[in-house]
Amino acid sequence: MSDAIAQQFAFLVEIDRLKTVMRQSPLLDRSRKENSGEHSWHLAMYALTLAQHADEPNTVDLNRVIRMLLLHDIVEIDAGDTPFFAKGVDYAETEKTELRAARRIFGLLPVEQGAAMLALWQEFEMAETPDARFAKALDRLQPLIVNAFTDGGTWNDFDVSEEEAMRRYGAIISRGSPALWREAEKLVAQHFAKKRAR
Amino acid sequence: MSDAIAQQFAFLVEIDRLKTVMRQSPLLDRSRKENSGEHSWHLAMYALTLAQHADEPNTVDLNRVIRMLLLHDIVEIDAGDTPFFAKGVDYAETEKTELRAARRIFGLLPVEQGAAMLALWQEFEMAETPDARFAKALDRLQPLIVNAFTDGGTWNDFDVSEEEAMRRYGAIISRGSPALWREAEKLVAQHFAKKRAR
Repeated sequence: MSDAIAQQFAFLVEIDRLKTVMRQSPLLDRSRKENSGEHSWHLAMYALTLAQHADEPNTVDLNRVIRMLLLHDIVEIDAGDTPFFAKGVDYAETEKTELRAARRIFGLLPVEQGAAMLALWQEFEMAETPDARFAKALDRLQPLIVNAFTDGGTWNDFDVSEEEAMRRYGAIISRGSPALWREAEKLVAQHFAKKRAR
Repeated sequence: MSDAIAQQFAFLVEIDRLKTVMRQSPLLDRSRKENSGEHSWHLAMYALTLAQHADEPNTVDLNRVIRMLLLHDIVEIDAGDTPFFAKGVDYAETEKTELRAARRIFGLLPVEQGAAMLALWQEFEMAETPDARFAKALDRLQPLIVNAFTDGGTWNDFDVSEEEAMRRYGAIISRGSPALWREAEKLVAQHFAKKRAR
């Protein structure tokens, strides 16, 4: 078999495991938790659907955002998913584990191709470029919508207050898309208002 | 809420259901069947990883191929998955059901955006442009690899012969990527040789 294709097939076989990494978020029908493979698909569809609302739509390259979102969680094959609202996470340790995972998994590919995917993943993690800021915003918006549509979702699991939700989602989503944050914060407010009214 | 964003959120909520559409193919660890959401993610990663092997790499627009693969199965929310080797399928009826589904689901979006996604899905279904031929090739290659790596997978379920596998995969994969078909047909041959040797 061609060396490049053999390496690429090995990578594609390895990343099948992302479908078995479970997130804390439920599906919208609440039948089970979501896995990181289908989550990555949904996020890429978020990007495709919501691109016009990026902070700098003329600067953001939607194709790079989609690629970033497709591969952003692959490190979880080794590192597992860290829920956004989990308490007591050692983020320095998580960062090291994820970097090792990225090197191992993207390292299955032909050298230049693996290096390009690793660089795209690192750009996402740094969240500084317009593309990465928009990708990060969507990665927070999707579970926010899940929670809003499942009567609280992980906000209940982690006992999240309205103040914490507003502050932590707002910081990330508004950096990538003020327009989407204006709509998303209404969903957060509606949920907590309904909860208080009970 | 902004009308466009409200429509886009409704679409993104609706397509969550693709995660509950089950395919006949197993995961590579054989722990369960694959769903069409995570399958769509995996296919987009196939495109990103294998683009250089397209029949006409200078003609194929990888970004369009990725978008096509992200949305190619969304119709299954209404129509369900039709396994490639299933017997007695009424393909004319399936086609009608899928077109109705595409109109309903992409019709949740703002008009122009929905029309663009519908057109991209129809281009995939027609399998005539270089982009669509490559996307179709990957949509067949991924389950072929699953079967090769799970000791037969759906080839066992549907009692598929080596001749049928070679003919039906070959027709589609070689139209999109002769290079990938050269490697893929070795995997098919190896599987059936191993099976005969038992």
